[in-house]
Formats: sequence, C-alpha cells, structure tokens
Amino acid sequence: MSATPSKTGSNPSVSTDGSVKGRLAVRAGIKVTLAIDAMGGDRGPSAVVAGISRSAKKNPHVHFIVFGDAEVLEPLIERRRWLRDRVTLRGTTGVVTMDEKPSQAMRRADTSMRGAIDAVRDGEAQAIVSCGNTGAMMATAMIRLRRIEGVNRPAIACLWPSRNEGGFNVMLDVGADIRADARDLLQYAMMGASYARNGLGIDNPRVGLLNVGTEEHKGRAEIKEAQDLIDQASGIGSYKYVGFVEGGHIPSADVDVIVTDGFTGNVALKTGEGTARLVGDLLKEAFKATPLSRIAALLALTSMRRLQKRIDPRRVNGGVFLGLRGTVVKSHGSADATGISSAIKLAYELAASGFTDRLAARVASAAASAQTTPQE
Amino acid sequence: MSATPSKTGSNPSVSTDGSVKGRLAVRAGIKVTLAIDAMGGDRGPSAVVAGISRSAKKNPHVHFIVFGDAEVLEPLIERRRWLRDRVTLRGTTGVVTMDEKPSQAMRRADTSMRGAIDAVRDGEAQAIVSCGNTGAMMATAMIRLRRIEGVNRPAIACLWPSRNEGGFNVMLDVGADIRADARDLLQYAMMGASYARNGLGIDNPRVGLLNVGTEEHKGRAEIKEAQDLIDQASGIGSYKYVGFVEGGHIPSADVDVIVTDGFTGNVALKTGEGTARLVGDLLKEAFKATPLSRIAALLALTSMRRLQKRIDPRRVNGGVFLGLRGTVVKSHGSADATGISSAIKLAYELAASGFTDRLAARVASAAASAQTTPQE
Repeated sequence: MSATPSKTGSNPSVSTDGSVKGRLAVRAGIKVTLAIDAMGGDRGPSAVVAGISRSAKKNPHVHFIVFGDAEVLEPLIERRRWLRDRVTLRGTTGVVTMDEKPSQAMRRADTSMRGAIDAVRDGEAQAIVSCGNTGAMMATAMIRLRRIEGVNRPAIACLWPSRNEGGFNVMLDVGADIRADARDLLQYAMMGASYARNGLGIDNPRVGLLNVGTEEHKGRAEIKEAQDLIDQASGIGSYKYVGFVEGGHIPSADVDVIVTDGFTGNVALKTGEGTARLVGDLLKEAFKATPLSRIAALLALTSMRRLQKRIDPRRVNGGVFLGLRGTVVKSHGSADATGISSAIKLAYELAASGFTDRLAARVASAAASAQTTPQE
Repeated sequence: MSATPSKTGSNPSVSTDGSVKGRLAVRAGIKVTLAIDAMGGDRGPSAVVAGISRSAKKNPHVHFIVFGDAEVLEPLIERRRWLRDRVTLRGTTGVVTMDEKPSQAMRRADTSMRGAIDAVRDGEAQAIVSCGNTGAMMATAMIRLRRIEGVNRPAIACLWPSRNEGGFNVMLDVGADIRADARDLLQYAMMGASYARNGLGIDNPRVGLLNVGTEEHKGRAEIKEAQDLIDQASGIGSYKYVGFVEGGHIPSADVDVIVTDGFTGNVALKTGEGTARLVGDLLKEAFKATPLSRIAALLALTSMRRLQKRIDPRRVNGGVFLGLRGTVVKSHGSADATGISSAIKLAYELAASGFTDRLAARVASAAASAQTTPQE
C-alpha cells in the first residue's frame, strides 16, 4: 500500500473508451484485496458476480472477498472457473434492502454490507464495493470504520464528464448528508482536492463552490462564509480556489472540484444524468425519423458509440465515500456488470495509491495549521 | 382580458418546431400591450428590438411600450418601418446592470426596468418582458406590483423539455428566493399547477416535490412537512400530488409540475442546460470525427435540426414570476432575438388568458378554505 500515484504534473488525457488513462493503468503489480457486498443493488447478486468476473479477467492483481447468500453466490462463482482462486466467499444471511432506514440497517450484524465493511476495518481487505442502499452504507461505515480525525461530515464524491483535458470533474457531496455548514464545505474542498490529486492525477486542482450566481453577494449565508474559509485554506489544501460556480459550470473546463451540500449535489447529479438520458433518447428517435437519417445512423455508428461511452454514467460509476478510515466505493443501485466493474477498478486504483492515508494526512495538517481541536 | 384559455381536457401536443401548439396559437384577436425593458440583457437593446420585430411580424394583436435609452432605441426602431405604429418609445436614463444589488436597483426611479414594471402597475400594459438582472427585477416588481394576497414568497417558474405529450414540464422556484419553508412550497404547488393549467392547457396537473429520494423518510424537515400540506390541498388546487420526485424525474412523463426551493431549482435548471450543451457539443465533435460521420451529419441534417429545436433553451425562454399582481416574463440574460421573441410570445399568451387573475383567485380560495389570514 506504499505505492506512489503517478503525478505527471499535467492532467491525464481521455482514452478512446472514455476512461481516464491514469486510472486505467493497473498500478504496477500492487496486490489489493477488495471486500464486495454482493447482495445490494437492484439487479441482484448475478450482476455483481458478472462485474467481478469482468474485473478479475482484466486485472490479475486483485483478490475478492465476497459477502452474501452462499446458496445463491456459490453456483454463480463456480460456473466461472477462473474465479475459483480469485474469490473468497463469506456466507451472510441478512440483506439490507434498498428502502431500509439507515438507522435500522446499521444495527444489524449479519448483513453482507456489514461483513464487507468489517473486512476493511479488520485489515483483511483494503477497500469496499457495494451497490446497496447508500444511506445504510454510509451510516454503517461511519459506525464501523469511524471518521478520519478532523472530519465532521463524510461526503460522497462522484466523477462528472467534463470539458477538461482529463474528461472528468469531481463533485461532492452528492448525497452523504442533506446539509452542510461552512466548516463542512471547507472539509469537502480539502477532501475533493485530495481525491482529484490521487484519483485523477491533477497536481493543483481548481476548486469551485456551487452557488446560484457568481457574484459575491449571492447565495445562502453558510456558502458566503465557506467562500472565505476555502479561499484561506487553499495553500494547506494544495488547491486553487476559483470562486462561486453555477450549475452550468459543473461540466466546464474552468474547475476540477465542485463543492456543495449533499442535497443540492444529489439533485444536480440526478438532473444531469436525467438530462443526458433524455437527449440520448431524443437522438435515437431523430436517427429513426427518416430513411436518410437511418442511413446516417449506420454511417455514424462508430462515432456515436464513442460519444455514448464518453457520457455513459456506467463508465464513471462509483461514488467514493470520503472522510472515513477506509475506502468505500458505492456503485449505482441500478449498476450492471459494466458499472460494477468500473466501481471495482476505481476501488483498486484508490487502494493501490494509499489514498485514505494521504487524505487523512492532508486533513490532519489542515486541522493542525488552523489550530483547531478535532471534536472526536 | 376576459378570454377563456383553451382547455381541451387533454395535453397539448408538440408541433414540429418544438413549441407547444396551445401556446403557439395567437389567441383569437385579443389585443395585448406589453411593456418591454429594452436595456437589460447581455446583448443589449439591439437584440431586444430584433426580438420585438420578429414577434410584431408574427402577431398583429400585440402592441409594445419600450423603455430605455431613446438615442439608442430610436434608430433601431426607425430602421424597421413595420414597427413604427406598433411601438411606443419611452425614454429612460438609468440602466440596472447585471451585477447590481437588488436592494440598490429597486430604489432607482429612472430605470427602464422600473418604467416597464410601472406601466403594468398603472394599467397601461398587461405584462412585462425583461432580460435584465433577475434579482433586481423581482425586488422591484415585489415593491411596485405587490404580491397577490396570500402569497408569502413569489417564485420563478420555467418550462423544462420533457417526455410528456406536451413536450414540457413546469419547475418552480428556479431562482426568486434562495429558501422556502413548507408553506412556501405549498404555494409553489398551487401557483405551478395554475400555470400548467393556463399556460400549457393541462386540466389536472400532476405535482411532485423535488427530493433526494422517493422514500417517505428522506429529505429535509421542511420538505417532509410540505409533503403533507401539498397532499391535503390537492382538491383546492385542482392538481394530483404524485409524491417525491428526484432530479432524474424532472424531464419525465410522470409529473407536470416540479416544486422546489429557489436555490435547488436554480442549480438544477443550470445543470440541466449545461449537460444538454455538453452533450450537444460532443455530438458535433462526433459528427466531425471521421469522413463517414461527416457524410452521416449531412444525411441526418433535418432530423438533427428538429432535435436541436426540441431542446433549444431559447425556444422555452422566459421564466415567469408567479405570485405578483401582474405578469412578468424574465428572459435569459443571454437571450438573442429568438429567445426574446419566445419570451414575448409567452407574455402575450399569459396576458391574453387573464392568467394573473386566475392565479389570484385560486390562491385566495385556498387561503379561505384553510381559514388562514393573509399576513399583508
């Protein structure tokens, strides 16, 4: 876990399949064990095992501890011979449902979710992947893994297709908590910058604060307060603060990390996905509209597939929980094998880079510099 | 102003140019005078007069009172002979800049914005169109026009391209205020339903409340409280409450009116626009990528133009201020002639339908039924 992430001094470029090159590279030979919660998600364990299978073929350095119903999982794994010595199966009886209350789910000891989290807590695995109930995952992870010292509210960060050279921006919080005060927003800036540095290879990320306008006097009180805190801490956090950004700037080339509260971030994320889906569907309709456009669709097939990959939410699947003593990658509930494989790749890359320790060190130095005493 | 809006009992359908048929029709011969603030906007008076000119040609029943710098406006109007007996020019000296503080702008008596608002207040015109500073416009309109009795916070409603038969959903508030309590959200539901009925011809609109999940226990306290209020008032408001909706549902066919606070709504609106722009730009790149795709682009030209019109923000340009004693259509600051002409069309349709009176009557009956005393 002592590998140095590649810091080239320039942004990574987008490869033809829409992934970030820096993240695609299997970090030279570093072995990582991932704990997989196989029971969450809308598509059930078969999609999860299919995703594991795909990742196992691509990356020989990853081992999986898979938690869930042994009777269901065993045949799924046995059927794929190449998985036999790559997967350790741990049978669990309980399943956290997608609409279960977090406060209830976190008290249950027998679930696949809890098993996966405890594997990282106990040092058996270096990162967790789950496509289960996000709220339950966060609540359980906060109790079992605990927060990094100095972090009040952990956050979920997502990657957003953008006009940047690397092809993605980072946005957080996209749903860990529904509120955030000025100090929380400052921590999001620190954590988001650290993620952009370690996950995307951007040395000195540009951080923006999401607001309803770029003018100084606009926005809620806590946002105006956060503006000053984030600006002042840019040296310690090794980022450049670029000021307020609006919704339209989220996919722009003017910013790398977008900081917001989890309510606004979650709405923005889902609105962006919904809009992209609508445009995609209308595009398909347009291609079917006339005989000429149907021929055009055939001619443009390769280019359109490339475009589709570029904005496919499954390719950037995996919200990362930031601020915990362990790396948690939360995949979309509706993720299929492609989506789960993307989440596994992200978990591997972060674990191999020693990301959690780096983030903790950054937050600790910020806390020390600000001469504040962590409250836990 | 006593015209009955067309209520066909079914949703209007989308015409080939992406506009709503019901709104496109010039309401049979009803004369309307519009007050135009010609000095706001990023593109200046020439874009505004170009938009007026386009609308004047299309609709013989509208007269314009244009407010702004006479020296600049007079030649722009004189150059277009057909505008001479369609436009009354009122010279004003002050201009509200795009970044001026609302509290400061609303105190200035000599501005084109104030002139346009006062024309409606004094009964000279039936609706206002401006592409100036939104905050200043709302602050000035609240002082000069006053709020409808029973309305605490006015809201800005926008049209959103959707999968609905009519092609659009309504979302509010998208930026009048940065906060809203449960009672404000209830009023947004009433006002949004009234707008969907009068502006889009939807008899019994389906209202949804924007949240981070559709489960009962999710979201902020004021949203959970608003959920009950909106559900209970559905009879009085003549709408159907469909529960929580997420960002991904904004363009869906499951809802007609999306209710949220002005901070979240503004971020969502701009995020949606930004995403659509990104996808559009990537699409153009994809069409240029290979010789085959360039041929495809030619073949698909007509279909693509139709798609572009369908999602072009300029075609649905015009946020409507709801809850004031007068109709205000706020066009995008960056609107060009096409955008301004769309805003003028919307202002005409709403004025011709007697929308403000209908909305006031609905809010009053709701207030009476709830036996609450308006606070002003």
